[in-house]
Amino acid sequence: MQFHLNGFEPGDPEIADPVERVAPSGMSGPVPTEVDVLIVGCGPAGLTLAAQLSAFADIETCIVEQKPSRLLRGQADGVACRTMEMFHAFGFGERVLKEACWITETTFWKPDDRKPESIVRSGRVQDVEDGLSEMPHLILNQARVHDCYLDVMRKSPAKLEPYYSRRLLDLSIAPAAQFEDHAVTVRLERLDAGHEGEVETIKARYVVGCDGARSTVRKSIGRELRGDSANHAWGVMDVLAVTDFPDIRFKVLIQSARDGSIIVIPREGGYLVRLYVELANLDAGERVTSRNITPDDLIAKARQILNPHTLDVKEIAWWSVYEIGQRLTDKFDDVPAEETATRLPRVFIAGDACHTHSPKAGQGMNVSMQDAFNLGWKLASVLRRRSAPHLLHSYSAERHAVAKELIDFDREWAAILASAKGDNKGADAAKTQDYFVRHGRYTAGTATHYRPSVITAEPNHQHLAKGLVIGTRFHSAPVVRLSDAKPVHLGHVTKADGRFRLFVFAGAGDPAAAISPVRSLCDFLSENPKSPVRRHTPAGADIDSVIDVRAVFQQSHAELAIATMPPLLLPRKGRYGLIDYEKMFCPDLKGGHDIFAMRGIDRDKGCTVVVRPDQYVAHVLPLDGHAELAAYFDGFMLRAD
Amino acid sequence: MQFHLNGFEPGDPEIADPVERVAPSGMSGPVPTEVDVLIVGCGPAGLTLAAQLSAFADIETCIVEQKPSRLLRGQADGVACRTMEMFHAFGFGERVLKEACWITETTFWKPDDRKPESIVRSGRVQDVEDGLSEMPHLILNQARVHDCYLDVMRKSPAKLEPYYSRRLLDLSIAPAAQFEDHAVTVRLERLDAGHEGEVETIKARYVVGCDGARSTVRKSIGRELRGDSANHAWGVMDVLAVTDFPDIRFKVLIQSARDGSIIVIPREGGYLVRLYVELANLDAGERVTSRNITPDDLIAKARQILNPHTLDVKEIAWWSVYEIGQRLTDKFDDVPAEETATRLPRVFIAGDACHTHSPKAGQGMNVSMQDAFNLGWKLASVLRRRSAPHLLHSYSAERHAVAKELIDFDREWAAILASAKGDNKGADAAKTQDYFVRHGRYTAGTATHYRPSVITAEPNHQHLAKGLVIGTRFHSAPVVRLSDAKPVHLGHVTKADGRFRLFVFAGAGDPAAAISPVRSLCDFLSENPKSPVRRHTPAGADIDSVIDVRAVFQQSHAELAIATMPPLLLPRKGRYGLIDYEKMFCPDLKGGHDIFAMRGIDRDKGCTVVVRPDQYVAHVLPLDGHAELAAYFDGFMLRAD
Ligand SMILES: Cc1cc2nc3c(=O)[nH]c(=O)nc-3n(C[C@H](O)[C@H](O)[C@H](O)COP(=O)(O)OP(=O)(O)OC[C@H]3O[C@@H](n4cnc5c(N)ncnc54)[C@H](O)[C@@H]3O)c2cc1C
Ligand SMILES: Cc1cc2nc3c(=O)[nH]c(=O)nc-3n(C[C@H](O)[C@H](O)[C@H](O)COP(=O)(O)OP(=O)(O)OC[C@H]3O[C@@H](n4cnc5c(N)ncnc54)[C@H](O)[C@@H]3O)c2cc1C
Repeated sequence: MQFHLNGFEPGDPEIADPVERVAPSGMSGPVPTEVDVLIVGCGPAGLTLAAQLSAFADIETCIVEQKPSRLLRGQADGVACRTMEMFHAFGFGERVLKEACWITETTFWKPDDRKPESIVRSGRVQDVEDGLSEMPHLILNQARVHDCYLDVMRKSPAKLEPYYSRRLLDLSIAPAAQFEDHAVTVRLERLDAGHEGEVETIKARYVVGCDGARSTVRKSIGRELRGDSANHAWGVMDVLAVTDFPDIRFKVLIQSARDGSIIVIPREGGYLVRLYVELANLDAGERVTSRNITPDDLIAKARQILNPHTLDVKEIAWWSVYEIGQRLTDKFDDVPAEETATRLPRVFIAGDACHTHSPKAGQGMNVSMQDAFNLGWKLASVLRRRSAPHLLHSYSAERHAVAKELIDFDREWAAILASAKGDNKGADAAKTQDYFVRHGRYTAGTATHYRPSVITAEPNHQHLAKGLVIGTRFHSAPVVRLSDAKPVHLGHVTKADGRFRLFVFAGAGDPAAAISPVRSLCDFLSENPKSPVRRHTPAGADIDSVIDVRAVFQQSHAELAIATMPPLLLPRKGRYGLIDYEKMFCPDLKGGHDIFAMRGIDRDKGCTVVVRPDQYVAHVLPLDGHAELAAYFDGFMLRAD
Repeated sequence: MQFHLNGFEPGDPEIADPVERVAPSGMSGPVPTEVDVLIVGCGPAGLTLAAQLSAFADIETCIVEQKPSRLLRGQADGVACRTMEMFHAFGFGERVLKEACWITETTFWKPDDRKPESIVRSGRVQDVEDGLSEMPHLILNQARVHDCYLDVMRKSPAKLEPYYSRRLLDLSIAPAAQFEDHAVTVRLERLDAGHEGEVETIKARYVVGCDGARSTVRKSIGRELRGDSANHAWGVMDVLAVTDFPDIRFKVLIQSARDGSIIVIPREGGYLVRLYVELANLDAGERVTSRNITPDDLIAKARQILNPHTLDVKEIAWWSVYEIGQRLTDKFDDVPAEETATRLPRVFIAGDACHTHSPKAGQGMNVSMQDAFNLGWKLASVLRRRSAPHLLHSYSAERHAVAKELIDFDREWAAILASAKGDNKGADAAKTQDYFVRHGRYTAGTATHYRPSVITAEPNHQHLAKGLVIGTRFHSAPVVRLSDAKPVHLGHVTKADGRFRLFVFAGAGDPAAAISPVRSLCDFLSENPKSPVRRHTPAGADIDSVIDVRAVFQQSHAELAIATMPPLLLPRKGRYGLIDYEKMFCPDLKGGHDIFAMRGIDRDKGCTVVVRPDQYVAHVLPLDGHAELAAYFDGFMLRAD
């Protein structure tokens, strides 16, 4: 798609009239007085959480935002592969694939050895290694990502819309509250015309502060961001410009001899481009805003660095200046570390409220959304009485570790980019490029690895599925659906619907045979009183509504007879008892993709892979590990009866 | 996507609340009194035409429909590969790919040799041959196809919405009218509450009757549908059912020994299925409606044919009965054959108004939309003074030939399906399957081959691009974009925007060299007064707004320097003169797709391929065929000056 040719226009580019692209949204009237979950802040974290909770009509969610309307321009734009996998689960992956700019390669420029005042291309790398994800690395305006979530929320069972012009003033948690209580009291100030200064009070069972780096929620639970004071300053601008720099549609890292660095990020629509421009180091304690940097300063600096290339800026769609500070909050909920055994969390923080870092690695938005995706299903599971509330402790534990790694990574990366000045021998360019490649998996978001916990098993049977590493995201692979021979991606069956998935990979032999381990497992799951499917699925609900069982066979679809398969794999569902035909898959042999080979599944024994609602591998077990499977779910889930 | 589990719900399945899925639409108030184009009928033909014309804010279009609101269920559902290629040009290909049911294989069932009252599977074929199209064969409710067009229209520059509850009464054409006149006077009757019986008059430059098999527009220009009287009767029903028939998610042709045939069409959402059920032959002149067939009759018949399989119908979302008649109108406009040299067409008919046939080959909706796609760009080109009005004669000439082939094909197909009764030796099953395979290209919609005419050149240079046959649709292939290394489909640059495309395939050697034929051609196109680009592009318009030039090189993207390319391939556009970076492509060698090999392009000489706005190959020429290229466009286009 090409757009923004005649100037940046916010909103949906498929709507021809720019005025209709920015139609107002949001709830009018007062906020509700009592809710299950109050989300503070409509950034990527808040909207991911709201979209997740909106899937459940039985959860009352309210999301508030101090700004008067939705975001229309600026802020982050990098969408990592891992984020795209999540977007697919929310149902808007296709849309982002269509609208966003694809990053396929990154190029590197450095000072010309013979003429150091000019830059030359020093390298070119594929941006994402082959096979890392079925999704590409994309660039799209954060505002459009917000729009995708707002659309999901609007169409969802809960029909959620934000309340804009509401500023959180403070919150208090009633001591010794019962689990069922609406123990958190929140005060909001209205900022909208005609209501300025009015204060509304909401009581919530849970409050999630997705309120950014200066989070009031964080302060109200007595936590703070700690870390480096910043002394690198950067400017960023989204421009429509004419240049003869040939790589303007690639992601580019440019290190000049004397004038610092630029990162070029091509943008959606084919014309817009983002430039991150390095500014001079700050003095200790100095704020970049005190320097009164103007867009003209950024352009002048960019021109110096791009020499001998031209840069004729026609329009600045958005710009900002930054200082880089890597900071982290010690815990992401209201429970002091020493009280985790005795107290349950009521208030959480997510996203920039927990961690801040430079925008250089393009991680801020992505990690913030993954925070919320981690928390969302847990909150839903507890509120819907599927899981015991102690599950909620795992949010801070898991995401704090991820944020810590991010901060460390970002610090190193920022230092590398800042270090090359004055060097024209190209050594640092090589170092940058090498670091970039090594950390590709990290920036793609696929390196997240949760440690063993109540929801992440010890890797005792990891050898049965070497490529589906416990604690990492379920790495999708192409398969063919048995019932209709449609080529699909196995990972795309995981929707953001709060369900666990059991992927049953058949071992050698006929899976339909009376004695096959797949059949025994399915029989156990559907018949045995100890079955987690039976234990945790409410009476009257569809059999796959809590734990969704899918099987993958080794034979091609034409070799297998669907009618001979265990009934659990052809479940009867809904008010009519219709058959769900989408539970069984075969390798995509015609397409040359054998999922058993690609993911290192033991062909002889097969295995069961448990995948969490946020797409992380929770467990790998032998097909006959029935008791172990039941024990895993008993560790945190409640019995439905 | 899975939906309809708890009952069929019309409208967008991504909206959770069924009530909001069927929000009313359409224009209120009286119709305009004067328009450029009046379209009668909101079926697939009318909506395709309206969507095409809505791309142009400078064309005043009005579309009317006698029904009170948009279609919500029933009618056709087959979406051929060729149709998907067109949908992509309209911008909703991705959406249909996501929502529709994919047909990957068709299976065949026949009477069991040993037990003729039971059916057994006799064969299985891949539905679409490899490489025929980058698009699959899909099934989606005609109503949802309508919705996609309505969405395009609503978001378009012209912001088009239908006027519902308007029935065309009659039309008259003023004799000897000037080309500019609004020579057609149309009378409409309002059917909406409070306005019943009110008559509105519209004057239009052109009227297009997309008003179905009983077309009033057709009658008003004195034409009639001629052909077979029907004597095969079929019933069709969309059902939610439970069955143990194992191929219920495949397309299936079943021929029973004594009870006739069924065609099974699996439907979108994973649960719905359409069954076409053969009924007894009609007597001469008999209408099927006279038999008072009920849905229960259809179910009973289906059960007999499916024996020994069960069929437990839980809900009938839609049903209908049909008689098969292959009928065709002799000409698709108001100009008698003998007056084509002296008179210009003012009134056209498209879709079922021109041709009817059985639904068995799934062609009705597809061919109707292709009619309108053929007409749409021609009307726009004439109205926008880009082409001389005699271009409009080509519509009837081209589409009548296609309809004739369709009718012949359909007659043969219906006869084969009807012939197998009472035969249990399987010979006819083999014949059916063989015919099915041979005609795969036909049913996929890719066999359409326009004959030489003012817009379709003689194949004098066809050897330069053996796989891009003049007169057939431009067969897309994967390429990599030079400026950003993004893998894309070359054919996907053709949008439904009324533009011609020139695909310049470079020959051997460096395309950037001063003497390269690509450079000479680009220089000719941008500089020479005889250049069709210069002649036909209005002053002040973007250089690619009438004829869009794209180049494909043989080298990989990393071997070519963008800055050395002819300026025509990096055009400056829009109010800022921004550079369009999406004009140059390279073979996708990493993906194993060499477009030069795939499409038989002469590697030594290269060639220029002209593609019409409706995606058909109009011409293949040598790169140095400058004069011939100019002559082609001069044959029907007007000079912009
Ligand atoms: C101006 C700006 C520019 C940025 N530029 C880049 C960039 O160039 N590249 C990059 O990678 N990242 C950039 N970021 C960072 C990136 O946007 C964040 O990492 C990401 O948005 C974090 O998401 P979040 O949801 O945690 O917080 P945020 O997106 O910050 O969202 C927090 C939301 O909470 C609201 N809020 C705050 N306090 C209250 C309150 N008391 N009551 C009600 N609402 C409240 C805020 O208005 C805001 O909408 C930028 C951020 C900002 C603010
Ligand atoms: C009831 C029915 C069932 C069908 N079932 C199948 C099927 O099962 N499989 C299959 O492949 N095809 C089926 N078809 C055929 C398929 O729908 C058509 O081939 C296709 O819709 C043709 O598109 P069209 O736009 O030419 O005409 P249509 O879709 O028929 O559209 C014509 C439109 O014009 C309107 N109209 C007619 N006269 C006037 C007037 N005087 N004033 C204003 N408006 C008017 C009509 O209300 C209608 O909406 C069916 C068609 C019908 C009508």
